[in-house]
Amino acid sequence: QCIIDNVVDLKVQAAITSIVSATLAKAKLLCQDVSARGALVSCPAGYKPTGCACGMGCGSWDIRTDSTCHCQCAGIDWTAARCCKIGV
Amino acid sequence: QCIIDNVVDLKVQAAITSIVSATLAKAKLLCQDVSARGALVSCPAGYKPTGCACGMGCGSWDIRTDSTCHCQCAGIDWTAARCCKIGV
Amino acid sequence: QCIIDNVVDLKVQAAITSIVSATLAKAKLLCQDVSARGALVSCPAGYKPTGCACGMGCGSWDIRTDSTCHCQCAGIDWTAARCCKIGV
Repeated sequence: QCIIDNVVDLKVQAAITSIVSATLAKAKLLCQDVSARGALVSCPAGYKPTGCACGMGCGSWDIRTDSTCHCQCAGIDWTAARCCKIGV
Repeated sequence: QCIIDNVVDLKVQAAITSIVSATLAKAKLLCQDVSARGALVSCPAGYKPTGCACGMGCGSWDIRTDSTCHCQCAGIDWTAARCCKIGV
Repeated sequence: QCIIDNVVDLKVQAAITSIVSATLAKAKLLCQDVSARGALVSCPAGYKPTGCACGMGCGSWDIRTDSTCHCQCAGIDWTAARCCKIGV
Protein backbone atom coordinates (compact mmCIF):
# COMPACT_ATOMS: atom_id res chain seq x y z
CA GLN A 1 0.00 0.00 0.00
CA CYS A 2 1.19 3.46 -0.83
CA ILE A 3 0.51 5.85 1.95
CA ILE A 4 1.22 8.63 -0.41
CA ASP A 5 -0.44 11.46 1.39
CA ASN A 6 1.61 11.23 4.53
CA VAL A 7 4.87 10.60 2.79
CA VAL A 8 4.35 13.47 0.40
CA ASP A 9 3.30 15.73 3.21
CA LEU A 10 6.45 15.11 5.18
CA LYS A 11 8.84 15.24 2.29
CA VAL A 12 7.20 18.24 0.72
CA GLN A 13 7.26 20.25 3.90
CA ALA A 14 10.94 19.63 4.43
CA ALA A 15 11.92 20.23 0.84
CA ILE A 16 9.89 23.40 0.48
CA THR A 17 11.17 24.93 3.67
CA SER A 18 14.72 24.23 2.62
CA ILE A 19 14.43 25.56 -0.92
CA VAL A 20 12.37 28.58 0.01
CA SER A 21 14.87 29.59 2.64
CA ALA A 22 17.80 29.14 0.29
CA THR A 23 16.08 31.10 -2.46
CA LEU A 24 14.98 33.91 -0.20
CA ALA A 25 18.50 34.20 1.14
CA LYS A 26 19.51 35.20 -2.37
CA ALA A 27 16.89 37.94 -2.60
CA LYS A 28 18.61 41.29 -2.62
CA LEU A 29 17.93 44.95 -3.00
CA LEU A 30 19.12 46.07 -6.40
CA CYS A 31 19.65 49.80 -6.51
CA GLN A 32 20.88 52.43 -8.91
CA ASP A 33 21.12 56.20 -9.05
CA VAL A 34 19.67 58.35 -11.76
CA SER A 35 20.04 62.09 -12.09
CA ALA A 36 18.95 64.79 -14.48
CA ARG A 37 19.09 68.53 -14.92
CA GLY A 38 16.18 70.42 -13.44
CA ALA A 39 13.83 69.55 -10.58
CA LEU A 40 12.49 66.17 -11.70
CA VAL A 41 13.93 62.73 -12.38
CA SER A 42 12.18 59.37 -12.67
CA CYS A 43 13.30 55.87 -11.73
CA PRO A 44 13.59 53.19 -14.45
CA ALA A 45 10.61 50.88 -14.88
CA GLY A 46 10.38 48.37 -12.04
CA TYR A 47 12.39 50.50 -9.63
CA LYS A 48 10.99 52.61 -6.81
CA PRO A 49 12.59 55.78 -5.45
CA THR A 50 13.74 55.30 -1.84
CA GLY A 51 15.22 58.78 -1.46
CA CYS A 52 16.11 61.88 -3.45
CA ALA A 53 19.02 64.32 -3.59
CA CYS A 54 19.02 67.84 -4.94
CA GLY A 55 21.51 70.38 -6.21
CA MET A 56 22.24 73.59 -4.35
CA GLY A 57 22.38 71.71 -1.04
CA CYS A 58 18.60 71.44 -1.03
CA GLY A 59 17.01 68.74 1.15
CA SER A 60 13.36 69.50 0.43
CA TRP A 61 11.82 66.99 -1.92
CA ASP A 62 8.78 64.85 -2.56
CA ILE A 63 7.99 61.83 -4.70
CA ARG A 64 5.35 62.02 -7.39
CA THR A 65 3.26 59.10 -8.61
CA ASP A 66 5.53 56.70 -6.69
CA SER A 67 8.20 57.06 -9.38
CA THR A 68 9.58 60.59 -9.71
CA CYS A 69 11.81 62.64 -7.41
CA HIS A 70 10.92 66.33 -7.27
CA CYS A 71 13.24 68.86 -5.66
CA GLN A 72 11.37 71.83 -4.25
CA CYS A 73 13.95 74.59 -3.89
CA ALA A 74 13.59 77.42 -6.40
CA GLY A 75 15.83 77.28 -9.46
CA ILE A 76 17.14 73.80 -8.65
CA ASP A 77 19.93 72.75 -11.05
CA TRP A 78 19.90 68.97 -10.70
CA THR A 79 17.84 66.21 -9.11
CA ALA A 80 18.89 62.64 -8.33
CA ALA A 81 16.88 59.60 -7.33
CA ARG A 82 18.02 56.51 -5.48
CA CYS A 83 16.02 53.74 -7.15
CA CYS A 84 15.67 50.19 -5.79
CA LYS A 85 13.84 46.96 -6.51
CA ILE A 86 13.90 43.39 -5.23
CA GLY A 87 16.04 41.03 -7.23
CA VAL A 88 16.75 37.32 -6.89
CA GLN B 1 6.49 -1.16 -5.68
CA CYS B 2 6.27 2.52 -5.20
CA ILE B 3 9.65 4.15 -5.03
CA ILE B 4 8.02 7.15 -3.53
CA ASP B 5 11.02 8.82 -2.08
CA ASN B 6 12.89 9.26 -5.31
CA VAL B 7 9.88 10.23 -7.32
CA VAL B 8 8.80 12.76 -4.76
CA ASP B 9 12.29 14.11 -4.47
CA LEU B 10 12.58 14.79 -8.17
CA LYS B 11 9.12 16.17 -8.65
CA VAL B 12 9.23 18.24 -5.51
CA GLN B 13 12.55 19.83 -6.34
CA ALA B 14 11.39 20.87 -9.78
CA ALA B 15 8.00 22.10 -8.65
CA ILE B 16 9.36 24.05 -5.70
CA THR B 17 12.07 25.75 -7.68
CA SER B 18 9.57 26.79 -10.31
CA ILE B 19 6.94 28.11 -7.93
CA VAL B 20 9.42 29.83 -5.62
CA SER B 21 10.99 31.66 -8.53
CA ALA B 22 7.65 32.71 -9.92
CA THR B 23 6.45 33.90 -6.53
CA LEU B 24 9.63 35.79 -5.73
CA ALA B 25 9.48 37.49 -9.11
CA LYS B 26 6.26 39.08 -7.90
CA ALA B 27 7.84 40.41 -4.71
CA LYS B 28 8.00 44.18 -4.90
CA LEU B 29 8.90 47.19 -2.86
CA LEU B 30 5.72 48.91 -1.77
CA CYS B 31 6.38 52.50 -0.80
CA GLN B 32 4.45 55.54 0.31
CA ASP B 33 5.20 59.04 1.52
CA VAL B 34 4.00 60.50 4.77
CA SER B 35 4.54 64.04 5.96
CA ALA B 36 3.61 66.12 8.94
CA ARG B 37 4.14 69.56 10.39
CA GLY B 38 7.14 69.90 12.65
CA ALA B 39 10.37 67.93 12.83
CA LEU B 40 9.05 64.37 13.24
CA VAL B 41 6.98 61.95 11.20
CA SER B 42 6.57 58.19 11.55
CA CYS B 43 6.01 55.49 8.96
CA PRO B 44 2.83 53.39 9.09
CA ALA B 45 3.08 50.03 10.85
CA GLY B 46 5.01 47.50 8.77
CA TYR B 47 6.82 50.15 6.75
CA LYS B 48 10.42 51.27 7.25
CA PRO B 49 11.76 54.72 6.44
CA THR B 50 14.31 54.57 3.60
CA GLY B 51 14.95 58.31 3.47
CA CYS B 52 13.65 61.61 4.84
CA ALA B 53 12.97 65.07 3.44
CA CYS B 54 12.70 68.33 5.36
CA GLY B 55 11.22 71.77 4.89
CA MET B 56 13.39 74.86 4.54
CA GLY B 57 15.73 73.03 2.15
CA CYS B 58 17.23 71.12 5.08
CA GLY B 59 19.09 67.88 4.33
CA SER B 60 20.17 67.00 7.87
CA TRP B 61 18.07 64.22 9.35
CA ASP B 62 18.22 61.01 11.32
CA ILE B 63 15.90 58.08 11.90
CA ARG B 64 14.68 57.27 15.39
CA THR B 65 13.72 53.80 16.60
CA ASP B 66 13.84 52.54 13.00
CA SER B 67 10.48 54.18 12.31
CA THR B 68 10.55 57.98 12.61
CA CYS B 69 12.17 60.65 10.46
CA HIS B 70 13.62 63.55 12.42
CA CYS B 71 14.73 66.74 10.68
CA GLN B 72 17.50 68.50 12.56
CA CYS B 73 17.48 72.09 11.30
CA ALA B 74 16.16 74.63 13.82
CA GLY B 75 12.53 75.67 13.46
CA ILE B 76 11.79 73.08 10.78
CA ASP B 77 8.28 73.49 9.36
CA TRP B 78 7.61 70.07 7.86
CA THR B 79 9.13 66.60 7.73
CA ALA B 80 8.44 63.81 5.26
CA ALA B 81 9.36 60.12 5.29
CA ARG B 82 9.70 57.75 2.37
CA CYS B 83 8.34 54.48 3.79
CA CYS B 84 8.75 51.07 2.16
CA LYS B 85 8.02 47.41 2.82
CA ILE B 86 8.20 44.18 0.89
CA GLY B 87 4.94 43.08 -0.70
CA VAL B 88 4.00 40.05 -2.75
CA GLN C 1 -1.38 1.14 -8.62
CA CYS C 2 0.14 4.32 -7.38
CA ILE C 3 -0.69 7.25 -9.59
CA ILE C 4 2.11 9.11 -7.98
CA ASP C 5 2.62 11.81 -10.52
CA ASN C 6 -0.83 13.29 -10.30
CA VAL C 7 -1.09 12.99 -6.57
CA VAL C 8 2.30 14.56 -6.06
CA ASP C 9 1.51 17.28 -8.52
CA LEU C 10 -1.63 18.32 -6.73
CA LYS C 11 -0.27 18.04 -3.24
CA VAL C 12 3.00 19.69 -4.09
CA GLN C 13 1.38 22.63 -5.79
CA ALA C 14 -0.86 23.32 -2.85
CA ALA C 15 1.82 22.84 -0.24
CA ILE C 16 4.37 24.95 -2.04
CA THR C 17 2.03 27.82 -2.67
CA SER C 18 1.01 27.84 0.96
CA ILE C 19 4.51 27.67 2.40
CA VAL C 20 6.03 30.10 -0.07
CA SER C 21 3.37 32.65 0.68
CA ALA C 22 3.77 32.23 4.41
CA THR C 23 7.54 32.52 4.18
CA LEU C 24 7.49 35.52 1.88
CA ALA C 25 5.07 37.24 4.22
CA LYS C 26 7.86 37.18 6.78
CA ALA C 27 10.37 38.84 4.44
CA LYS C 28 11.13 42.29 5.73
CA LEU C 29 13.31 45.25 5.09
CA LEU C 30 16.03 45.34 7.71
CA CYS C 31 17.54 48.79 8.00
CA GLN C 32 20.08 50.61 10.07
CA ASP C 33 21.74 54.00 10.13
CA VAL C 34 25.45 54.58 10.04
CA SER C 35 27.20 57.92 10.30
CA ALA C 36 30.74 59.20 10.34
CA ARG C 37 32.67 62.42 10.43
CA GLY C 38 33.50 63.90 7.07
CA ALA C 39 31.82 63.54 3.69
CA LEU C 40 31.78 59.75 3.27
CA VAL C 41 30.23 56.80 5.05
CA SER C 42 29.72 53.22 3.88
CA CYS C 43 26.98 50.71 4.62
CA PRO C 44 27.86 47.42 6.34
CA ALA C 45 28.42 44.40 4.10
CA GLY C 46 25.17 43.12 2.68
CA TYR C 47 23.34 46.41 3.14
CA LYS C 48 22.58 48.95 0.42
CA PRO C 49 22.22 52.68 0.96
CA THR C 50 18.65 53.84 0.25
CA GLY C 51 19.25 57.48 1.14
CA CYS C 52 21.84 59.79 2.68
CA ALA C 53 21.80 62.68 5.14
CA CYS C 54 24.44 65.37 5.59
CA GLY C 55 25.53 67.84 8.22
CA MET C 56 25.14 71.58 7.76
CA GLY C 57 21.61 71.10 6.40
CA CYS C 58 23.06 69.88 3.10
CA GLY C 59 20.77 67.82 0.83
CA SER C 60 23.20 67.30 -2.06
CA TRP C 61 24.61 63.79 -2.09
CA ASP C 62 25.44 60.87 -4.31
CA ILE C 63 26.15 57.19 -3.79
CA ARG C 64 29.48 55.71 -4.80
CA THR C 65 30.03 52.11 -5.85
CA ASP C 66 26.52 51.24 -4.66
CA SER C 67 27.72 51.29 -1.04
CA THR C 68 28.95 54.70 0.11
CA CYS C 69 27.11 57.94 0.81
CA HIS C 70 28.97 61.07 -0.27
CA CYS C 71 27.83 64.51 0.83
CA GLN C 72 28.77 67.19 -1.67
CA CYS C 73 28.62 70.47 0.24
CA ALA C 74 32.02 72.02 0.97
CA GLY C 75 33.49 71.38 4.42
CA ILE C 76 30.78 68.90 5.38
CA ASP C 77 31.08 67.81 9.03
CA TRP C 78 29.15 64.54 9.08
CA THR C 79 27.53 62.10 6.67
CA ALA C 80 24.92 59.45 7.42
CA ALA C 81 23.61 56.55 5.38
CA ARG C 82 20.29 54.76 5.67
CA CYS C 83 21.25 51.14 4.90
CA CYS C 84 18.77 48.36 4.15
CA LYS C 85 18.69 44.72 3.11
CA ILE C 86 16.08 41.99 2.75
CA GLY C 87 15.76 39.71 5.73
CA VAL C 88 13.57 36.71 6.45
